[in-house]
Amino acid sequence: MILLDGNKLSAVIRKEIGHRVIDFCGKEIRPPHLAAVLIGDNPASQAYVRNKIKACEEVGFASTLIKKPETTTQEELLDIVRGLNEDPKLDGYIVQLPLPRHIKEEEITLAIDPAKDVDGFHPNNFGRMALGMPSFLPATPMGIMIMLDRYQIPTDGKHCVVLGRSNIVGTPIALLMSKKSKPGNATVTIAHSRTQNLSEITRSAQIIIAALGIPHFLKEDMVSPGTCIIDVGINKIEDTSHAKGYRLVGDVDFEKVKYKCSAITPVPGGVGPMTITALLENTWRAFREKK
Amino acid sequence: MILLDGNKLSAVIRKEIGHRVIDFCGKEIRPPHLAAVLIGDNPASQAYVRNKIKACEEVGFASTLIKKPETTTQEELLDIVRGLNEDPKLDGYIVQLPLPRHIKEEEITLAIDPAKDVDGFHPNNFGRMALGMPSFLPATPMGIMIMLDRYQIPTDGKHCVVLGRSNIVGTPIALLMSKKSKPGNATVTIAHSRTQNLSEITRSAQIIIAALGIPHFLKEDMVSPGTCIIDVGINKIEDTSHAKGYRLVGDVDFEKVKYKCSAITPVPGGVGPMTITALLENTWRAFREKK
Repeated sequence: MILLDGNKLSAVIRKEIGHRVIDFCGKEIRPPHLAAVLIGDNPASQAYVRNKIKACEEVGFASTLIKKPETTTQEELLDIVRGLNEDPKLDGYIVQLPLPRHIKEEEITLAIDPAKDVDGFHPNNFGRMALGMPSFLPATPMGIMIMLDRYQIPTDGKHCVVLGRSNIVGTPIALLMSKKSKPGNATVTIAHSRTQNLSEITRSAQIIIAALGIPHFLKEDMVSPGTCIIDVGINKIEDTSHAKGYRLVGDVDFEKVKYKCSAITPVPGGVGPMTITALLENTWRAFREKK
Repeated sequence: MILLDGNKLSAVIRKEIGHRVIDFCGKEIRPPHLAAVLIGDNPASQAYVRNKIKACEEVGFASTLIKKPETTTQEELLDIVRGLNEDPKLDGYIVQLPLPRHIKEEEITLAIDPAKDVDGFHPNNFGRMALGMPSFLPATPMGIMIMLDRYQIPTDGKHCVVLGRSNIVGTPIALLMSKKSKPGNATVTIAHSRTQNLSEITRSAQIIIAALGIPHFLKEDMVSPGTCIIDVGINKIEDTSHAKGYRLVGDVDFEKVKYKCSAITPVPGGVGPMTITALLENTWRAFREKK
């Protein structure tokens, strides 16, 4: 069994990005610049944004954190977005989701300049991806594609079962895996909460990508020997033996499933760091394509 | 077995659209207006465009046919597109594909105003569809969804196998069928030329949507009893008994498969007329949403 180590692979790729920055930038050319907008005090969101900013520092990107209170209005956030769109010294930015309930997320996403949309959530980027045109790919599916590529996991003609159909992971990874590309070119099944005979379907897969958000959902008896498993879930479960009173687990019953796999991602340390690495790649791309 | 009769259903829906036009328009309000751009002399394209124009007349829409020679340049076509974008008396238009080889199709698609893109091929519309936002749906998948809805074919939790992954049919219908919607909410498998064990997969389906463009590809032994089959293929095969020397057949071996189905579309007279009906619905929508 190969452990698909997102930390190790990310370290390698981030070093590559860091070298690109050194080679390309200097006294005359400023480094790539990513901004992150964080509204409110959601602890998970704070941690994610912190990691993104840290990753920027790691590769020599400039970064800006825009932190605003939970009470920020729709119009105030739109003003921030417009400002970021117009800032010539900024290559890309993200608005960390989820947003407070009183803010219309869709309107914010639509206001982001697609050329700076390094999260790939704007319909224009999403549509380009779905149509197989060059675009910013959403960071999590892009991170998975990079991982499959670097670990040389065979995907061509394989049956890939995607658990979950979210806009952020399930739907885009299903699209990417089905395209005539490498990695990709897989037969893809999109399964979800309404799926019947799920175990039968997952057992017929050579690749399973689990993105349901249900701790330990994928059990040993749902997996055939030799399957490659990508676990996108990050779920908190109570654990009094940990200082914080909880620990993070994936959508896969890792300890029992791992013996049956050809390859598997751990949680944490699998898809998570790859997501941030993909965001760095998108920022690099925005920087290089800037007009 | 239910024959999913696209001609009959289209006649019903077109009558409904016609009534909407009568009820809404009059001396003060002009009717919805669709334009079609046809470049060159491809006989199939000529027939498609003719049918679209005829359908407009049928429901009381205004229509304009812009016919240009095969030698039309990229810049000339872009000029036409820009003109149509700016025309306040036009609600929607299509540029009939395929275009002559010397024209960059993608550049043309990107130049179409998404608000007039009643074919739903612009990335902005395609992305909105993929993200589950309101948009113009591509006409063929939209026609299939209308058909499944009107014939009340159960899709919720069913396994739907899509054969083909084109941007025009396979990919968008897979997206639509997987969404939490009615019809939709199906477990969807996207199969294609690289798929292994295809017969096993198609036999596990309750719904098969065939959009490969290979005559009589789907055979009796690939289908389980009670399957609903949507045949998107329109293929010419030689037939000396026909005056023209050929006849049109689908991707499904209709004569042998039909006995095993719960429902099936004929070719011609199934998905084809529904595609045009969907285009009329999109034009109506563009007309009503016009600012």
